Amino acid sequence: MSLSLRIKFERHMPKVSKRGEEMTQSPIRSLIPFARTAKENGIEVLHLNIGQPDITTPQSALNTLSTYNNDIIEYGSSEGVESLRKEVKEYYCEHVSPIEFNDIYVTTGASEAILFTLFSCFDQGEEIIIPEPFYANYIGFSHTSGVHLVPVTSTIDNGFSLPKAESFVEKISKKTKAIFLCNPGNPTGNLYSLEELEAIAAIVKEYDLFLIVDEVYREFCYDQEFRSVLSLSGLEQHVVVIDSISKVFSACGARIGFLVSRNEQLMGTILKYAQLRLCPPMIGQHIAEACFANRATYIRQVKEEYNKRRLYLYDRLAKIEGVKIYMPKAAFYIMTELPVENAKNFCIWLLQSYQKDGQTLMLAPGEGFYLNEKYGKSQVRIAFVLGVPELERAMNILENGLKEYKSVELNQTPQSYSCI
Amino acid sequence: MSLSLRIKFERHMPKVSKRGEEMTQSPIRSLIPFARTAKENGIEVLHLNIGQPDITTPQSALNTLSTYNNDIIEYGSSEGVESLRKEVKEYYCEHVSPIEFNDIYVTTGASEAILFTLFSCFDQGEEIIIPEPFYANYIGFSHTSGVHLVPVTSTIDNGFSLPKAESFVEKISKKTKAIFLCNPGNPTGNLYSLEELEAIAAIVKEYDLFLIVDEVYREFCYDQEFRSVLSLSGLEQHVVVIDSISKVFSACGARIGFLVSRNEQLMGTILKYAQLRLCPPMIGQHIAEACFANRATYIRQVKEEYNKRRLYLYDRLAKIEGVKIYMPKAAFYIMTELPVENAKNFCIWLLQSYQKDGQTLMLAPGEGFYLNEKYGKSQVRIAFVLGVPELERAMNILENGLKEYKSVELNQTPQSYSCI
Repeated sequence: MSLSLRIKFERHMPKVSKRGEEMTQSPIRSLIPFARTAKENGIEVLHLNIGQPDITTPQSALNTLSTYNNDIIEYGSSEGVESLRKEVKEYYCEHVSPIEFNDIYVTTGASEAILFTLFSCFDQGEEIIIPEPFYANYIGFSHTSGVHLVPVTSTIDNGFSLPKAESFVEKISKKTKAIFLCNPGNPTGNLYSLEELEAIAAIVKEYDLFLIVDEVYREFCYDQEFRSVLSLSGLEQHVVVIDSISKVFSACGARIGFLVSRNEQLMGTILKYAQLRLCPPMIGQHIAEACFANRATYIRQVKEEYNKRRLYLYDRLAKIEGVKIYMPKAAFYIMTELPVENAKNFCIWLLQSYQKDGQTLMLAPGEGFYLNEKYGKSQVRIAFVLGVPELERAMNILENGLKEYKSVELNQTPQSYSCI
Repeated sequence: MSLSLRIKFERHMPKVSKRGEEMTQSPIRSLIPFARTAKENGIEVLHLNIGQPDITTPQSALNTLSTYNNDIIEYGSSEGVESLRKEVKEYYCEHVSPIEFNDIYVTTGASEAILFTLFSCFDQGEEIIIPEPFYANYIGFSHTSGVHLVPVTSTIDNGFSLPKAESFVEKISKKTKAIFLCNPGNPTGNLYSLEELEAIAAIVKEYDLFLIVDEVYREFCYDQEFRSVLSLSGLEQHVVVIDSISKVFSACGARIGFLVSRNEQLMGTILKYAQLRLCPPMIGQHIAEACFANRATYIRQVKEEYNKRRLYLYDRLAKIEGVKIYMPKAAFYIMTELPVENAKNFCIWLLQSYQKDGQTLMLAPGEGFYLNEKYGKSQVRIAFVLGVPELERAMNILENGLKEYKSVELNQTPQSYSCI
């Protein structure tokens, strides 16, 4: 295209929004092109980078698809299908904390539950205090809703325990409207104790804040019992819980999440956003209902499997020279510190330049889970979403890769991989 | 609760956001409590108020549910499942306008496609010019994204034809970023001619605007051929088309929509929002694919059925004294003007105080489809989402109800129904 033509063309092209331009891409996704190229070159990539489990969805739930006997896939209630909400209420009353039917809405994944909460609780420019590292997509949700995340940094040195109450209080400004937790934690695999949660509870009561807690990994706690913030007294008006069937029932693609709160005013506000999108996916809700109906055995077995993987992974990582590790208490993630200066470069190198018996490994660079740019540079998140045999191969790749990478890192300029 | 207790309680209660409080509720939904009470009193309510058709979803598509043979309902691509996008591309190339595979994203309903477009095209406070009356939920979408809708009012006197180009140009300010059309029109049942679309095309080119067109009723055009804005030349960078399987395949609850644009920069921006919510519902996409695969006969039959209803409804409405009517060209809606001062009060009265042989009628008050408060007060939208036998009963109720309501309206104060 000639210069004059291009100028004319650009002049007549409507521009995308500034907020759209500034919207960050998921740091996990930025490595996808490298994985694609590796696969095109015939290399098998072991994906420990994403929270997509290899565990099968409950067969009994999948079976109900063949008995779906509605002639019309109609709009349902904006709050979610009544029979599913009853099933979820029963589950909460039995396993989490007693709630009422009206305290639950079904959402299109936990993602939508988070967005509804942000729009309903916060005006533009208001602030949320959140421990980092945290699930990277929270950045996108807060950007979409114009809310600012104010991080309180936790450290690998104590397994990413909750930072002291003072560190939260220090960050409170006139714009602070909530504390946001992910418990059990993604990417940390941490689980907050009752004492830690009570310290946060005291702050939200003192400063009239919302307490928003993403509890989607609730069912995978290995060493200590899970406590939901819903079970803490005096927080009825403060707590919003985010939930989902994606991880617990390995049904990520159904896009069924939940939002739970006893705050009637908030639920009334959220309902307006829910009505706007008409209803959550109806067939996904049909499957979700079947998942809850036969949950007990399934969840126990899945948890046992994840626990096996956790123990194996911990053992292997603990033996690799220079790797900093702690025992994750919950979920299916470990955030480890590798003996490299820039873990993102190492992740790219694994995909671009390394293989062992035709296989390589994809990990999630840790820096994407921090807002503070100085943290997480040497860390990676490992999701144990593959079985022990695959994990064994993956750890062999990691162990050998790290050895080989030592000489590479010495010779490369810091900008080597800045192209992405 | 004592006053002192209440004050203490309120002091310690975090407040919902201002934007959440200001978020409007769908005007259609505000009548739901009245319909519920009518049903509780044993009255059958004929629902002509919503766009939920009684037509069955293609049986061949529903049948594919029993052959869904994935063991895991996994996350899919954020852009949508490849095989579905290919099917949709083929449909577009054959029936709408030649597009490329990358010009299509699958979304969670047309609702999500609209939201993604608003966030990606507009910054806070920017403006969209839109002919009114329009689909009421556009107000909620624009409120969520902080975009202002600037209406250009069309009139029932010419069947809601597109207002003259000058009326659009007059409204253009420095903040104007797009023109938004719904074609075929909800709530009007209007269809814009090629000349009308070309007049708009000239404006968007002249002023570098986006042209966003909701074409979800595309397949239901009865008297003249449909022209998509995608088929107009020179608009490659300007046009965004919103689409959905909800209406054409009577699968509203599947929550599968589409966003189509040839603007690469825009699609790149939208992808970031799409990645944030991970993927559209996977089983809904599975059904959507099956819908497109066997579309021809199904769509023809459904269109014939709607056309029968349209002709019947027009005939009946034309015979009711004082009702202003035009022949809708497309979709399955008619916006009529009733011989009442306040159509909303009449709609409530139908639900609250009227019945004929144990039945009554629910209509959508017209004022909710206008931004200008002075318009639409005597209008209602009638959706022909029930068959001719039900429409016959509905029109009997409307005809007799209007006669009986004359004396009611004379005696009531204007505030009678202001409680909602």
